[in-house]
Amino acid sequence: MKATIITIGDEILIGQILDTNSRYISRALNAHGIMVAERTSIGDDRTQIVETLNRALSQSEVVIITGGLGPTKDDITKHTLCDYFGSTLRYDEVEAEHIRTLLAVRNIAFNDLNRGQAMVPECCTVLHNAHGTAPGMWFEQNGRVVVSLPGVPFEMQHLIDEEVMPRLKARFELREIVHRTMITFGIAESILAERIAKWEEALPDYIRLAYLPAPNVVRLRLSAYEVEGKEVRHEIDNLFEELRSIIPDNIAGFEEASVEELVHNILINKGLTLATAESCTGGAIASKFTAQAGASAYFLCGVVSYSNESKNKVLGVEMSDITQFGAVSEQVAMAMAKGARAISGADFAISTTGIAGPTGGSEEKPVGTVWIGVATPNRCFAVLKNCGTDRLQIISRATAYAIAMLYEELK
Amino acid sequence: MKATIITIGDEILIGQILDTNSRYISRALNAHGIMVAERTSIGDDRTQIVETLNRALSQSEVVIITGGLGPTKDDITKHTLCDYFGSTLRYDEVEAEHIRTLLAVRNIAFNDLNRGQAMVPECCTVLHNAHGTAPGMWFEQNGRVVVSLPGVPFEMQHLIDEEVMPRLKARFELREIVHRTMITFGIAESILAERIAKWEEALPDYIRLAYLPAPNVVRLRLSAYEVEGKEVRHEIDNLFEELRSIIPDNIAGFEEASVEELVHNILINKGLTLATAESCTGGAIASKFTAQAGASAYFLCGVVSYSNESKNKVLGVEMSDITQFGAVSEQVAMAMAKGARAISGADFAISTTGIAGPTGGSEEKPVGTVWIGVATPNRCFAVLKNCGTDRLQIISRATAYAIAMLYEELK
Repeated sequence: MKATIITIGDEILIGQILDTNSRYISRALNAHGIMVAERTSIGDDRTQIVETLNRALSQSEVVIITGGLGPTKDDITKHTLCDYFGSTLRYDEVEAEHIRTLLAVRNIAFNDLNRGQAMVPECCTVLHNAHGTAPGMWFEQNGRVVVSLPGVPFEMQHLIDEEVMPRLKARFELREIVHRTMITFGIAESILAERIAKWEEALPDYIRLAYLPAPNVVRLRLSAYEVEGKEVRHEIDNLFEELRSIIPDNIAGFEEASVEELVHNILINKGLTLATAESCTGGAIASKFTAQAGASAYFLCGVVSYSNESKNKVLGVEMSDITQFGAVSEQVAMAMAKGARAISGADFAISTTGIAGPTGGSEEKPVGTVWIGVATPNRCFAVLKNCGTDRLQIISRATAYAIAMLYEELK
Repeated sequence: MKATIITIGDEILIGQILDTNSRYISRALNAHGIMVAERTSIGDDRTQIVETLNRALSQSEVVIITGGLGPTKDDITKHTLCDYFGSTLRYDEVEAEHIRTLLAVRNIAFNDLNRGQAMVPECCTVLHNAHGTAPGMWFEQNGRVVVSLPGVPFEMQHLIDEEVMPRLKARFELREIVHRTMITFGIAESILAERIAKWEEALPDYIRLAYLPAPNVVRLRLSAYEVEGKEVRHEIDNLFEELRSIIPDNIAGFEEASVEELVHNILINKGLTLATAESCTGGAIASKFTAQAGASAYFLCGVVSYSNESKNKVLGVEMSDITQFGAVSEQVAMAMAKGARAISGADFAISTTGIAGPTGGSEEKPVGTVWIGVATPNRCFAVLKNCGTDRLQIISRATAYAIAMLYEELK
């Protein structure tokens, strides 16, 4: 069972927005046994939409389209699909009333453009968009399904979860896709690959191995498509057990979750609390944790101490340490972590202080130099990491290292 | 002049990673007059790579491919391209030495897999990857160009900037693409569209209008493809001046920049400083600012005061205010902003306190309720915003509102 995802919008092709929708839809389809054959992004152009839809329908049973459903003239998806399926538009009273209510909350009058949003093709099933003004649409033709959803991520996500996936499950008999991921720590990708080469060669044809490297961590994913889930899952478990005997000291866990999700779960389960003190990562660590529902159970306080004064005044780092060792130093990283623990009363604290660039580097401390501190109920230490050469790379790697170090302490 | 972007990797199709590469490449191509006709993501599959490449070459002069260049067996792009162009692999001593050096810094031995990374097709021009171990490749066939780059974002980005774009500019005579964006404030998309309908209808054929809505802000983008840049730029300026006379009170600026970039520039130019006090946004505001190079000139301190104790202890919010009005209240939002200004000595501070959900809502203060506070040298106030129903939506909207409010104060 295959699907094609089509995201429509000139703003994607010129790079004005990031296409996060494709990923969300890929995950949802995969989780329910539908393999994504291709994802494609095209412009708000009728000919291109029609050609892409033809190709998608030739290679897959399910086509999910997002974008181009807004109230304005540049949004042409609905009219194009209506013509494609040889249908005409009708006025949907229920949708019109819903749009009216949503606008009223924001003190906006219902106008002709909104009336246009309540028009839907006769031949489609309307998918109610509780969180927005553009309804989703479900078309069927020759046993294949075409779904059109608004491009606004939150609206699209709720429609996928609440309307599209339940209907796909009811409409098709889906076979499973099994993915299991093992997380390895402290071993470089090429060394790991060399060490497990024999094991990899012996994998059966229907199980594929993928390497997903990240700072300090390489994920190994085994995937089996369109299988009897129970048996292959058992088989993958055994394969991972074999792997454990090859690299016993480098295995961190067996989950699909990100490291921050693993930490999140451990902190909640153990009733422990966390604080952060960030300089070069500038709030990125705090936001990774607080983005997760339930973070308030353990996340007490984060400080983004960008200036030296705030390191001193808010976190209690001694000015003499900053002067003597520099703001980017083992001593300051440790003092920041200790300070975050002290002011928040948290069990654990992590800190970062480094040079994110592009300026501010020196011979001794080049751009990319980051000290990461960890304070636990028992000890406090800091580790020096070189996090790369590009500002966003440095922020993202330092964030990943800090969370990985916390994870190792908590395990 | 058209391009197709192909990103390769099963991890994209199953949604394990977000494809940020396509966006980066789209921006770079667009900025230099190359229109992206299509972006497509496919699996690590030889047949699919060949078919997609055939299609891409039939519709565009330039094809940029990322991914599948790692040292492990799941990476098949290089071999597939080598066969596609009827070439054979040769060992590149320069690349081998570079890989050896990069690995030595990390104390990793150079092994057979790394040796494989130094093998390149005879027929290609090697694009040196200063930041990683997989070299880029530049192929030419029948006047068309195919470029293959590693999928690691930072490596790919440097290769695009330092190798691919300069070579494309030297290789082709590129015509301009002009995009100009006007930022409107405080007017809903459908109302805006109604108000400017006549102006929109009178736009010439070769200029396209797009609406890009975000909380509090709708961007209007005018685009002209393959044009004489100077004349059309002047024409677009005139069109935007006409627009200003239609909605004089709703125009915020004329830039492509995000609102945080606008704020960043104003703060630097005026020599003003900023602090943040975040509850529900959990560090997202601080990281938006600190992600920008040069933020240390104005960003002094951010506090992620998730717990009530940290609101009190770190920011000096009175416990009695929290008890009497609740942590999510006008009073607490204002006290947080004032507190952030006080502890940091910053000129401006913004704060957020709200209910990001999914739990914690009540009849009176449902999930999505967010108070946003602003403290300036002259005044302090807070505004209530309903930021939606989904946790990440709420965090992202509250962040956008807070930054937009600060922008209005600074303008």
